[in-house]
Amino acid sequence: MFEILKKDSKSKARLGKLHTQNGIIDTPVFMPVGTLGTVKSVSPLELYNEGFKIMLSNTYHLFLRPGMEVIEKFGSLRNFINYKGAILTDSGGFQIFSLAKFAKISDDSVEFMSHIDGAIHVFTPEKVVKLQEVFDSDIIMPLDVFSGPEASKSRAEKDLDITLKWAEISINAKNKEKNNLIFLISQGNFFEDLREKSAIYLSELNADGYAIGGLAVGEDKETMYNMLNISASKLPENKPRYLMGVGTPEDIITAVSLGVDMFDCVLPTRNARTGSVFTSKGNLNIKNSIHKFEKQPIDDECNCYACSNFSRAYLRHVFMSKEIFSQRLLTIHNLHFYQNMIFNIRQSINNDNFMNYKNNFLEKRLK
Amino acid sequence: MFEILKKDSKSKARLGKLHTQNGIIDTPVFMPVGTLGTVKSVSPLELYNEGFKIMLSNTYHLFLRPGMEVIEKFGSLRNFINYKGAILTDSGGFQIFSLAKFAKISDDSVEFMSHIDGAIHVFTPEKVVKLQEVFDSDIIMPLDVFSGPEASKSRAEKDLDITLKWAEISINAKNKEKNNLIFLISQGNFFEDLREKSAIYLSELNADGYAIGGLAVGEDKETMYNMLNISASKLPENKPRYLMGVGTPEDIITAVSLGVDMFDCVLPTRNARTGSVFTSKGNLNIKNSIHKFEKQPIDDECNCYACSNFSRAYLRHVFMSKEIFSQRLLTIHNLHFYQNMIFNIRQSINNDNFMNYKNNFLEKRLK
Repeated sequence: MFEILKKDSKSKARLGKLHTQNGIIDTPVFMPVGTLGTVKSVSPLELYNEGFKIMLSNTYHLFLRPGMEVIEKFGSLRNFINYKGAILTDSGGFQIFSLAKFAKISDDSVEFMSHIDGAIHVFTPEKVVKLQEVFDSDIIMPLDVFSGPEASKSRAEKDLDITLKWAEISINAKNKEKNNLIFLISQGNFFEDLREKSAIYLSELNADGYAIGGLAVGEDKETMYNMLNISASKLPENKPRYLMGVGTPEDIITAVSLGVDMFDCVLPTRNARTGSVFTSKGNLNIKNSIHKFEKQPIDDECNCYACSNFSRAYLRHVFMSKEIFSQRLLTIHNLHFYQNMIFNIRQSINNDNFMNYKNNFLEKRLK
Repeated sequence: MFEILKKDSKSKARLGKLHTQNGIIDTPVFMPVGTLGTVKSVSPLELYNEGFKIMLSNTYHLFLRPGMEVIEKFGSLRNFINYKGAILTDSGGFQIFSLAKFAKISDDSVEFMSHIDGAIHVFTPEKVVKLQEVFDSDIIMPLDVFSGPEASKSRAEKDLDITLKWAEISINAKNKEKNNLIFLISQGNFFEDLREKSAIYLSELNADGYAIGGLAVGEDKETMYNMLNISASKLPENKPRYLMGVGTPEDIITAVSLGVDMFDCVLPTRNARTGSVFTSKGNLNIKNSIHKFEKQPIDDECNCYACSNFSRAYLRHVFMSKEIFSQRLLTIHNLHFYQNMIFNIRQSINNDNFMNYKNNFLEKRLK
């Protein structure tokens, strides 16, 4: 169940609550990515205490490692990884097409080779729903086809037809007795009419929520926002909208203004591993030698554990020394930055001040 | 200042308190190794809250990275790394002889090539004390010569003479106005008479404590314990005795029975990186496939964060998936195992029950 508490008067931003079997999620929400059940370097308790009441995991990855029998033994993915919040599992469609050694698609299934051990597996849309029921995921995502950013229109149309067919199979395959939610994924590559067709078709299927996929895969920002706007505006008003795998703070705040409620992205965790950190005044890289003697924290407006306790000089030292504690501190900071932005977004929508907050945020970050 | 509170009646074990400028250290004590100022994967606050009131760092490593000017700017190493406890810095003698690309020794100094960037540096015993005064280390260790386990007697004698001369230079070089403590390092390779000579000579120099170096470098246990016993028994009764770089739980509990008060070792942290964990019933490796479905924690007698929250199956999964969170959890467990053993050692000495505890501990671990 999704409640909309408030709508912004100057944009399509909205404040909502998504009810899951493991807690109520305030939206807009950012979901940290724990592909294999762990948000890299961070404990599940730290994550929850930082206010992340929902995280992301990946069916393709967990199916390969540790394997279904292990998670089944624990009753749920949530039990296995000991996370108190809710979990959305991505189907792994994107990973099969981008990571597996090959992926052979038919109308009913996709055959692929594990990137880990070369074993051959077959996923059908039904099977992928059942796998996520074994995980007891709070939000189930259906198998879809990712054609890649270079796909021709005819290829994109063909892939979309399969994705739409699979969406219908998936929603029918889901066990209605259980409380797992299922979202459907609108696609359409970079073709306006396909984006429209996909969103309108899926809207009829009465899913618990709707994702927007296939964006932020290399296209320019203008194209992305245009496609996003088409998808978002054609999806049902009364269901949560989830923009998959996006994005920068600028992307998120813009997408909120277009009516998106949910986000996931590896940026805060992945950037931490390269020394790149987000601040209220723009990004910086802790490797830079200007930080060598710097007593200031990463961001003097930030209250995270890293900024409350450590100087840029220390953070640079542990990063340059390849200490993994560096990854932990920079990840905590970056996740806190995202969470703090999300809190401010929610508060500003509540105060009908969102566009003002958005403009100030962007101006301060980009100047 | 070192107080001995209690002596065990059936062994040479003793309970003490070592006063440092940054807190009183209960002995016997285990000091986790934070070579570059960070105990790998663990935060300084977690370390302190786990009861580690003193940690180890390394002069050679910190001199090279981040460099003296950086730490000087922060006033002390303790400020730089934001650790609430005390810090003992090893001089780096061992690292110069084992890690640097070359080390050319004269009577007064050692010239070496950085293992990081190939730069040439010269350390004198005076300089090494001064570097540690810049760190404001709670316990300063003098530069010594490590000849390696294969050294002939004549080589060992020559190196010992230099080490003894440098010890005297070091203790004289130390600023007496300041409250840093200085320990001296007894050596003597695997020659009984040299071990005796070294310990007796240094005892005259009235240091704040005495280390025993050059052990656990590949020799058999019998030789190690024999050499340790000679060194320990010839060092002053009223000063703390510190066995450098040792060792397994079995080594530590045996050394305590021979009158050793202080220990440091990379085993709990290094083993964590290979999946090897300590338990009350012996060691196990979390990689082993028998743990794949195991719901039990590493050690059902352990109350650490990892054992309180995670199954062996989960720990194996994150280890096999190369998630760095695995290193964190296994490190926390291993450090907790050492700390718990140390607490029990102290308590058993206090209750004059140490040998009983020792025998039970060894029997349970080795059966």
